[in-house]
Amino acid sequence: MRPHHDGSPLYVSNPAPSLGDDVVVRLRVPSGYGPVERVVVRSNPDHEPAWVDAVSDGAADGWEWWSAVIRVANPRHGYRFHLVRADGRVEILNQGGLGDIDALDGQDFALVAHNPPPAWLDDTILYQIFPDRFARSAAADARTAPDWAIPAAWNEPLDPVHPGRSRQLYGGDLDGATERLDHVADLGATALYHTPIFPAESNHRYDASRFDTVDPVLGGDDAYRRLIEAAHARGIHVIGDLTTNHSGIAHEWFRAAYGDPDAPEGAFYYFHDDAHTDYETWLDADTLPKFAWSSDELRRRFIDGPDSVVGRWLRPPYGIDGWRIDVANMTGRLGAEDRNAEVRQTLRRTMTDIREETLLLAESTNDAATDLQGDAWHGGMTYPAFTRGVWAWLADPRRIPHHGFDGEETDEMWFFGLPTGMPRYDARQFVAQYERFTSQIPWRVQRGTMSALDTHDTARFATYASPGAVPVALGLSMTLPGIPVVYAGDEFGLEAVDGEMSRTPIPWARRDEPEIRERIALYRELIGLRRAHPALSTGGLRWLHVDERSVVFVRESADECVLVVAARGGADATVPAALVPGAGAARALYGDAELTVGDDEIRITADGTAFAAWALPGVSAPPPRAHETAPEYEAFAQLGGPAD
Amino acid sequence: MRPHHDGSPLYVSNPAPSLGDDVVVRLRVPSGYGPVERVVVRSNPDHEPAWVDAVSDGAADGWEWWSAVIRVANPRHGYRFHLVRADGRVEILNQGGLGDIDALDGQDFALVAHNPPPAWLDDTILYQIFPDRFARSAAADARTAPDWAIPAAWNEPLDPVHPGRSRQLYGGDLDGATERLDHVADLGATALYHTPIFPAESNHRYDASRFDTVDPVLGGDDAYRRLIEAAHARGIHVIGDLTTNHSGIAHEWFRAAYGDPDAPEGAFYYFHDDAHTDYETWLDADTLPKFAWSSDELRRRFIDGPDSVVGRWLRPPYGIDGWRIDVANMTGRLGAEDRNAEVRQTLRRTMTDIREETLLLAESTNDAATDLQGDAWHGGMTYPAFTRGVWAWLADPRRIPHHGFDGEETDEMWFFGLPTGMPRYDARQFVAQYERFTSQIPWRVQRGTMSALDTHDTARFATYASPGAVPVALGLSMTLPGIPVVYAGDEFGLEAVDGEMSRTPIPWARRDEPEIRERIALYRELIGLRRAHPALSTGGLRWLHVDERSVVFVRESADECVLVVAARGGADATVPAALVPGAGAARALYGDAELTVGDDEIRITADGTAFAAWALPGVSAPPPRAHETAPEYEAFAQLGGPAD
Repeated sequence: MRPHHDGSPLYVSNPAPSLGDDVVVRLRVPSGYGPVERVVVRSNPDHEPAWVDAVSDGAADGWEWWSAVIRVANPRHGYRFHLVRADGRVEILNQGGLGDIDALDGQDFALVAHNPPPAWLDDTILYQIFPDRFARSAAADARTAPDWAIPAAWNEPLDPVHPGRSRQLYGGDLDGATERLDHVADLGATALYHTPIFPAESNHRYDASRFDTVDPVLGGDDAYRRLIEAAHARGIHVIGDLTTNHSGIAHEWFRAAYGDPDAPEGAFYYFHDDAHTDYETWLDADTLPKFAWSSDELRRRFIDGPDSVVGRWLRPPYGIDGWRIDVANMTGRLGAEDRNAEVRQTLRRTMTDIREETLLLAESTNDAATDLQGDAWHGGMTYPAFTRGVWAWLADPRRIPHHGFDGEETDEMWFFGLPTGMPRYDARQFVAQYERFTSQIPWRVQRGTMSALDTHDTARFATYASPGAVPVALGLSMTLPGIPVVYAGDEFGLEAVDGEMSRTPIPWARRDEPEIRERIALYRELIGLRRAHPALSTGGLRWLHVDERSVVFVRESADECVLVVAARGGADATVPAALVPGAGAARALYGDAELTVGDDEIRITADGTAFAAWALPGVSAPPPRAHETAPEYEAFAQLGGPAD
Repeated sequence: MRPHHDGSPLYVSNPAPSLGDDVVVRLRVPSGYGPVERVVVRSNPDHEPAWVDAVSDGAADGWEWWSAVIRVANPRHGYRFHLVRADGRVEILNQGGLGDIDALDGQDFALVAHNPPPAWLDDTILYQIFPDRFARSAAADARTAPDWAIPAAWNEPLDPVHPGRSRQLYGGDLDGATERLDHVADLGATALYHTPIFPAESNHRYDASRFDTVDPVLGGDDAYRRLIEAAHARGIHVIGDLTTNHSGIAHEWFRAAYGDPDAPEGAFYYFHDDAHTDYETWLDADTLPKFAWSSDELRRRFIDGPDSVVGRWLRPPYGIDGWRIDVANMTGRLGAEDRNAEVRQTLRRTMTDIREETLLLAESTNDAATDLQGDAWHGGMTYPAFTRGVWAWLADPRRIPHHGFDGEETDEMWFFGLPTGMPRYDARQFVAQYERFTSQIPWRVQRGTMSALDTHDTARFATYASPGAVPVALGLSMTLPGIPVVYAGDEFGLEAVDGEMSRTPIPWARRDEPEIRERIALYRELIGLRRAHPALSTGGLRWLHVDERSVVFVRESADECVLVVAARGGADATVPAALVPGAGAARALYGDAELTVGDDEIRITADGTAFAAWALPGVSAPPPRAHETAPEYEAFAQLGGPAD
């Protein structure tokens, strides 16, 4: 029985305000919480608290609503609610939860006055492909493999050991991808995210040798144009992939800079010696020299303005719809230097100037909160909040012997960068981790963050999934806030023990095998669930029940709510009926679980590992009264009151 | 039974490393925690996790010790410990606590490679004076009050209402302060912090009219020089007070700028109109125009270089020892602009260039974590972690009718900027709040942060203290990490309902009254406790017991430990004896409480509201073995391993 607020339209009048705008924020208090005498909203303009009283809007369906007008003072405008209860106790609600001690500023709810994500984000399901492994057109047969490559047939096994690991080339190409767009559309995906396509000396191409042309091995610029056109014709957006942290050692800029202290490109990298032969790398990879973002010329060529790399692929004749930025977390950061914010903001401005309706995502695989405040990245390819928690709860740390990075056979598993392997969570820990890692990220940016089960950098979830867990994990990715992601091949039921082995050629020839048909149907159905119910994308999130075995939550809008249960080891959850006023009208949407609606409580039961969803009527709320009053902050910076 | 680490010398080999230095960090695990198979230390260089295995150093006194070498990669180098237990479970320890889910980067332990605080911080007790109210020399009688002032006799009551509130002038001066330095020294204080002394148009002088000379009303530059010399002769450091957020409307720079669009000082402020008559202020105070830190000339005159305001008072013939910066939290911040880091770093560099052994403190009254990362401010005058919690636990929100800021009689109380009054905490909430608000601040900066019971901006603690609470609150301020602060007059038992009324002239004539003598003796004794036991300043902090009524903790070093209990409503705490190996040799230092040492547990009992401390032997630890190995990070940025 807790009051609720989040950044969704039920509670925030304008998710994309400008500085100086007035925004109505609303709080919803269940009757079971007990009387609330006063609600005060605390903002923190220019890092100094300011207060405005909320007004009571009256009740609907057993919930009392309050509203207040706040004026957006900073690009990230944090706010929280202080509730004064009848006995004088004060509770504070922000993204850190409801508490009876002071709350942290960094966990406040936050409005963001920076450039918003494109409207099409709301209906986005991302389909991720690894171009060398996705699909191969007939034209590929005529191409000669580059010198560095070790050509492989489509059905040949992956070689996990150097040099094959990064040099095996299966010859997937962009025309191949174009030919398979119907598959993508048929699944229900609305955006194609592809890993790099620029010339490089590896199959992953994160070691680009130039950024101004598409690798001929993939079909070159024209093939890319064809892919983009064909995608757009199907209403599918295209997201590219750029490495702003480093280039490959073969990059034209690095080749100009290496060994030539007079080259203009010398300033693009960190050279440690006068001869310009000793250079900073990404971690210890000699082939990946790190970019030095102090160089204005690098910015001009790469990220700043319509003629930069970032700009040119957004413009005709290409016109991609966004970028995913590789190693965004390390970009511009080295020792005492931190130019990350400058780089990401410049990059985003370039995109905005060309076409505002574009999406910018940052790879930031661990705690990304400092960077995901909405000033540039619309969201992250980040794992702690959703991905790691889903694995830790629903997968099992099976010991599967395989080849390690050094070629030795091993059964150790680095789990998402953790040397201690995959932890095992119960459902409570899954939710605690989700709450912890979203607590510092504004709602709008949470919604832009990828809810991947796996990617080209991880093992495939199905490999380690406990029995029956794939629909549960996939269901959660489709029903929690964030961008659902299908990593190509998951819908074929592919398995892979690590991030190298997950770069499997898609077995198109096996598409009609019963198990694969079934898995594809599962994907199609759960993506369809997401797309048919906009509350699953843009609605609020309220946890209704969490225990060791199961979680129950609801995504809510004024039009419709969707009630969701996910369980491992069965569910038997009771929720006070007052918390779900529309439960009596629930309509089953997916899964095998029972929903029993009583006068006082609703009960949700399921067996084993289960995922289910129901549609409920939308949330009724009285109209907000806050806008009847002008916002009037009270601030007492000197604690004793104004100093004059 | 929890593992422990903090930033103190028991656990960190170098508290003031430079970039690239190797530092040994140690973890201590009580035997009752159960076997630990492996300890891995996670750093996060350039925002990418890197791992190094700790080695077991062996055991001492029932604790197992581990050590690891980490190389300082960034100016704020965060790290945490991952403990692999015998059953395979992994627990993570950082400043957010010990947990079984992923931890937040912002709560990691942190080494700081920025300019360290002066060594004399270790033995610092701050004594804060408000110059107009501290002491008055005979010379003051001959001075004429400025036009704005309303002269008041020393024993005249304060006028809480405009205009008297800010214009009553009692005529305290710097020679008066010099005459009372023996009192300061006698208490045991080692540093004098005075609120502003530059000419202004108010008694608080936070509305400076210039920064290059001391107000003649206070005795002028020479009197300041005499005060500093006399203080230094007694080993007392002097800390000045600067307003970097705003000046007074009468400031020479503002007068030059106002109404003259061509004046060089026009860029020092935010003028909203071409005529330069409409300007940005501190909150809504027309008399306090806000500084615009985009101006290089403002930086040159005010904060940058030896001839700047910041510099000149640090140099001969003055030579103060540090600055407290007023409204540091808002400085350089307005709307979309945030130059706070530039300003504070420039300011600190100026100080360092003149004399490194100087202290820089930031007023940041609420959550100061974003600013208190050690890049400039050595600590904060900030209230959430210690001050608010102490009040909420040990004071009572009595309704005391008094004049509000508008002159109306009221019994409402804004509590430290909270419009909902003083919350009531139990001891658990006190500790929870302390832990929450220190969790994001590096240990070194925590140690530089003021543990004030009250200041010139707050009510006086004694006014609202529950019976017997003053020694407990004062005792906590002397025994927890941070800089203890005596706000002049507290040692006289003065009371005051708010931050205006707390600016009381010190009643020197009443010094021999028994109650005042007793209160002064209390201050002297508890300050003496702090100073006699360095572990109370520089030692580690380990909470041993927390319940609703009481807290027990220990401050620890290799030389000595101090065990502390604080209680409201009595204490009856048991602690496993293994957690306090030296308890058998405990020697009572202060207070009425019983310490009973049994084979399995120690028991601490006290009646009512109580504070007590015992000295224990220092902590034994085996020598660290980590330095026998070179640090070797493992990092897997791409999750699947190095990309090449």
